[in-house]
Amino acid sequence: MKAAAKAHTNIALIKYWGKRDESLILPMNNSLSLTLDGFYTTTSVEFRDNLTADRFYLNDRLIEGVEYDRVTAFLDRIRTMAGKSDAFAEIHSTNYVPTAAGFASSASGFAALAAAAAKAIGLTVSEQKLSILTRQGSGSACRSIYGGFVEWEKGIKADGSDSYAVPIAPADHWDIRVAAVVLSSAEKKILSREGMKRTVHTSAFYPAWVDSIPDDLAALKDGIMKKDFEKVGGIAEANCLRMHATTLAANPPFSYWQSTTLLIIQAVQGLRESGIPVFFTIDAGPNVKVLYLPEHEETVRNELLNITGVHDVKVSKPGQGVSYI
Amino acid sequence: MKAAAKAHTNIALIKYWGKRDESLILPMNNSLSLTLDGFYTTTSVEFRDNLTADRFYLNDRLIEGVEYDRVTAFLDRIRTMAGKSDAFAEIHSTNYVPTAAGFASSASGFAALAAAAAKAIGLTVSEQKLSILTRQGSGSACRSIYGGFVEWEKGIKADGSDSYAVPIAPADHWDIRVAAVVLSSAEKKILSREGMKRTVHTSAFYPAWVDSIPDDLAALKDGIMKKDFEKVGGIAEANCLRMHATTLAANPPFSYWQSTTLLIIQAVQGLRESGIPVFFTIDAGPNVKVLYLPEHEETVRNELLNITGVHDVKVSKPGQGVSYI
Repeated sequence: MKAAAKAHTNIALIKYWGKRDESLILPMNNSLSLTLDGFYTTTSVEFRDNLTADRFYLNDRLIEGVEYDRVTAFLDRIRTMAGKSDAFAEIHSTNYVPTAAGFASSASGFAALAAAAAKAIGLTVSEQKLSILTRQGSGSACRSIYGGFVEWEKGIKADGSDSYAVPIAPADHWDIRVAAVVLSSAEKKILSREGMKRTVHTSAFYPAWVDSIPDDLAALKDGIMKKDFEKVGGIAEANCLRMHATTLAANPPFSYWQSTTLLIIQAVQGLRESGIPVFFTIDAGPNVKVLYLPEHEETVRNELLNITGVHDVKVSKPGQGVSYI
Repeated sequence: MKAAAKAHTNIALIKYWGKRDESLILPMNNSLSLTLDGFYTTTSVEFRDNLTADRFYLNDRLIEGVEYDRVTAFLDRIRTMAGKSDAFAEIHSTNYVPTAAGFASSASGFAALAAAAAKAIGLTVSEQKLSILTRQGSGSACRSIYGGFVEWEKGIKADGSDSYAVPIAPADHWDIRVAAVVLSSAEKKILSREGMKRTVHTSAFYPAWVDSIPDDLAALKDGIMKKDFEKVGGIAEANCLRMHATTLAANPPFSYWQSTTLLIIQAVQGLRESGIPVFFTIDAGPNVKVLYLPEHEETVRNELLNITGVHDVKVSKPGQGVSYI
């Protein structure tokens, strides 16, 4: 009745942006990510007879409130699947994801939790089923089941049974790098969920965003297969800018960017103008992730660390999918 | 054969963004602006028999090259209208428009030039005809023919004869203020014409931009009539953000913003959260214009001058249309 798993976070090159079902977490569009070896969560789950409720420890701290509720609601799904509605668990999670770098630790967190909890309660699930299960905890987490380049197929069914991740190319297919730029000060932000919802319901540009995805996806997959870095980086950057543009057309409009975000964008563009192939992508927050090839690591790192408002740069390589530990 | 005119620049509350005809300068969408008393151009035009070409002085400097070509090409239209193809002029223009504040001096410049040249060559034109003529020199200049709040009707005819400005409310209708924020360093920028063209032809969001204008326009005119500052400011701000969002979805994507642009946006939002009705608008460049009511002038000025990267703040009131001097 005990199991432990490790899962890495992932960075979307084509963004998940908008839900068609809030409860089952079904997306409006396919997305495509790269799993990152540098940032991960380890989670152990033990179902114990003497418990009358779940106990959740995150980084050795007992968690209550909203975060606890989200975990226990997720375990409810697993209990239902296993037919064990009175099985409660003690969960220990450790995040190796620097939150200041703007990664959603929910991606690695729910992937590790789903894997560990399913095994601990005695469920035998395929990776596809595990991805479907994980998705219901945190949407983008379903991509972290696999390593390397991963597509999340939005599916069309109302029950979400065809909305899961599929591996596109493994981690060892291509050594590209992702630098997470840590900002000196993280200002207040609009929560990703809230911003996404407002954009879907009010942005004049949202339908065109959804329509633009299939072309991006086909071109990005082609670029990944051919290891065409300019193509992959260019599509990722354009896709992220298009996503952020949808927020400016929401009602009321909003933006996740801070002034440092723009300084980093301009530094990346400047490096590119000097002949170094380097691209950026930005999730629902002010932090920037920078894509580059291994041979340019020192140049890119130094350039980023020189920017006012940049505190640190955390480098990652393509990472593996979820594993039991 | 000599005349002189004065014209003010204007700030668009609903942006002119995209041409349907590059040569006649016909827009894809209606726009609506406020003429500003603080920023203007005075121009004298004298047609003289002894000249074999136009001579154009800007701020007492003899101009050659592209700027000269644009002026003389515009005078060609006036010569054709007057049936005087061999009448050449000496033109003296003085700009009282701080270019560092990011105003296009072409708006006041071409409005003053059109008025002075038409009178000097002996043409009798209505204000509507003058607006059509001015439009062919610089699109947004056609709005500077009138004072106060002015709409530029895009028209539908191929010859542009129904594409002109119409006055919505005079300068003395409502005393609102516009602060032009002057940045310490103006970085390189994508020219407005080039950016506009790229957006029209490649932005996935451009059609939705055009579709969004009629609602903005109706609401803005209602707000102006009712002197509803929150409504007017809110629509102007949302319209400008939507315009800038179209550039992020262009191919390749681009942005006119600099890091200081975002600092000013955040300062305006901060003032608003503290209860002061203040809004921003941004043209095709990094500079921000801030809209507020006279009673908040000191607060707004001080807040803006406190921002790192802000060099100066230039305040303006609603201004008059073109006049002969």
